[in-house]
Amino acid sequence: MSISDWLQSRYRGKEQSAGEIEAFVHAVTNGSVSSAQLGAWLAFVLCKGMSERETVALTKSMVASGKSLSWSSEGGVLCDKHSTGGVGDKVSLVLAPLWAKMGRRVPMLSGRGLGITGGTLDKLESIPGYKTDLSQHRLEEVLNTVGCFINGQTSELAPADKILYATRNETQTVPSIPLITASILSKKLVEGIEELVMDVKFGSGAFMQDISQAQELADSLVRVGEGAGLKIQAHLSDMSQPLGCKVGNALEVEEAIATLQGKGPKDLVDLVCKLSGDEPLARKILDSGEAFSTWSSMVEAHGGDLSLPLLGKDVSRFDWRADSSGVVTSCDAFHIGKAAFLLGAGRENSVDNIHFGVGLQLHSKVGDEVNSGDVLVSVFHVESNLDIAKNYLSQAYTIE
Amino acid sequence: MSISDWLQSRYRGKEQSAGEIEAFVHAVTNGSVSSAQLGAWLAFVLCKGMSERETVALTKSMVASGKSLSWSSEGGVLCDKHSTGGVGDKVSLVLAPLWAKMGRRVPMLSGRGLGITGGTLDKLESIPGYKTDLSQHRLEEVLNTVGCFINGQTSELAPADKILYATRNETQTVPSIPLITASILSKKLVEGIEELVMDVKFGSGAFMQDISQAQELADSLVRVGEGAGLKIQAHLSDMSQPLGCKVGNALEVEEAIATLQGKGPKDLVDLVCKLSGDEPLARKILDSGEAFSTWSSMVEAHGGDLSLPLLGKDVSRFDWRADSSGVVTSCDAFHIGKAAFLLGAGRENSVDNIHFGVGLQLHSKVGDEVNSGDVLVSVFHVESNLDIAKNYLSQAYTIE
Repeated sequence: MSISDWLQSRYRGKEQSAGEIEAFVHAVTNGSVSSAQLGAWLAFVLCKGMSERETVALTKSMVASGKSLSWSSEGGVLCDKHSTGGVGDKVSLVLAPLWAKMGRRVPMLSGRGLGITGGTLDKLESIPGYKTDLSQHRLEEVLNTVGCFINGQTSELAPADKILYATRNETQTVPSIPLITASILSKKLVEGIEELVMDVKFGSGAFMQDISQAQELADSLVRVGEGAGLKIQAHLSDMSQPLGCKVGNALEVEEAIATLQGKGPKDLVDLVCKLSGDEPLARKILDSGEAFSTWSSMVEAHGGDLSLPLLGKDVSRFDWRADSSGVVTSCDAFHIGKAAFLLGAGRENSVDNIHFGVGLQLHSKVGDEVNSGDVLVSVFHVESNLDIAKNYLSQAYTIE
Repeated sequence: MSISDWLQSRYRGKEQSAGEIEAFVHAVTNGSVSSAQLGAWLAFVLCKGMSERETVALTKSMVASGKSLSWSSEGGVLCDKHSTGGVGDKVSLVLAPLWAKMGRRVPMLSGRGLGITGGTLDKLESIPGYKTDLSQHRLEEVLNTVGCFINGQTSELAPADKILYATRNETQTVPSIPLITASILSKKLVEGIEELVMDVKFGSGAFMQDISQAQELADSLVRVGEGAGLKIQAHLSDMSQPLGCKVGNALEVEEAIATLQGKGPKDLVDLVCKLSGDEPLARKILDSGEAFSTWSSMVEAHGGDLSLPLLGKDVSRFDWRADSSGVVTSCDAFHIGKAAFLLGAGRENSVDNIHFGVGLQLHSKVGDEVNSGDVLVSVFHVESNLDIAKNYLSQAYTIE
């Protein structure tokens, strides 16, 4: 099959065989598909869709485009969790050590934040010394001794996904369920896991605002994941207000630590326990604070030093107060995320620097009663953009 | 509007203003739209269409992307004819001098062949010395004295079309009615003409095999052409068998000359007269052979020497004969075109060389009675490929 045939079949919606899709992905990876052709191919997929069987083949081909990690057959179930991204979402930081404590092995490869949704690697790098680029040999040691790691991806893993991902962003072809499915699953399959739990978010602070779209993605992930040989579950979770009370890299690490020590906010604890697959056991371990030692071991193994302060000294605090009394009826995740982003917690382009210490601590969320003058949000900021951030905060909150 | 917005609007099928489309075409021309983005944009247009108003704006913007020719306001109506391409289609060679003889001015810019459909420039270049790259100053002289010219396009004319055309071929996004319409009309509008006659072909030897698709394109060309300020007519014509009896560059020039001398095949004469807009007058001029002197002047003005032989000495002739008696019920244009192409009359890529002298002379067409042993086709060939060409010929003809 030539590149012209691939493009024409895609346009006509003709189902392609696994071999044809594998050959296409191979051609993408070795550069024999031009940028213009890849842009058109992605646009055809966005417009005309792709069958479940084709998406399985695409996912597997993306995995096969590079190396995969592999682990000893001895030991606990190899599992991971992936979220489609949200505001204040520090679930991975809690769940990885919790699962390890529950006897599982968690070889987690995470990404960085882009736009208003944060990235797990950025959060971890707010811990002085934490390295996200351990060698595979070292990762194996950490997995065997601690039971979990949270590391970055290397360019050797799923290189086809890197090309497709960059071109999807460039060509506005991101919102295709088959392409999102294949991208997420290929990145997880190269971890060498057996089980995956998906946290598919919906609401204003999520990539998919609409619950029916989120359901569609969840269904696609489960069917394609199973087709690619994974044991997989997908949960939908609400991202209309931020998860937990802290938004910002170092602030979220603080909240994750508190949660591991049995002092986490209810919504975060509930979600972590639900995703864990064994709610009573997870809740018991979190309450006891026992998973904190696993966390400490993992951070240490990555070179992180938890004895140093997380928030930089250059960060100032501003308390933003309610100007009326009543019940909080909205604490909108998009506006909160945008405020944190503008303070410097996020990045617009993958090369931008972020400021680990800035962010927001929410003292009230939906359903809380507040009095005029109460502190609604503590804003941790460095310099500029405070006024714009305050503007977003005032749009985020409704008190009635 | 950013490039992302253009792409998203295209995907969502949101109608864009003329100003937005012009800005996009400008960005394409100056290189600020990446190849991947242009590929995706073209694929979105193919999948989601484009309104007539948008297609007018696209056409005008493509014209405005470069220079246009302009002519004295004194003199005959400035007109041109364009065909969507066929096998044995030498209408332009006859119609340009015929129209000039009828008092019109014909500033014709033509293209080269690709695949089985020939190109007017290639045909003319089979005349020793014929130059297709005259300067604008010289073209003006020829138009004023002879009344017509047939020249190539320059890179200064409609540069946006050149970029879009190349990327459409690369990305298999050619069969989009709005994109075909804008490409054809922009190339004709830069000629500075007032009237355009379109010959939209359908049938096995045409780009559009289906008559309903051809009708759709014809309608689009007329509406968009009028929207862009042209007086325009579109005729549909059958390309299920070749036009005339000769296929191949020099052979088609021979047949055009015969037609200008009053000895043309009926189907070619009929089509030329119909397209001319004044059938009785056209027929009278052709019958009298009066337009031949205009042809000679035009060829001379382009540096061509009609006293030299058209077919090279290295060409051999092979007579392919009927192996049964009966009536010819099929003389399929696609297979005839493919045979001529394989003999060396056409090119697969724009850089390929062609052999002017090779081609086919059809002694029988649909409806003719033949006896076993009669010569059906004289094959003019140079060396290889004769057997493959014969194979296509045997598929082209049905005798019942």
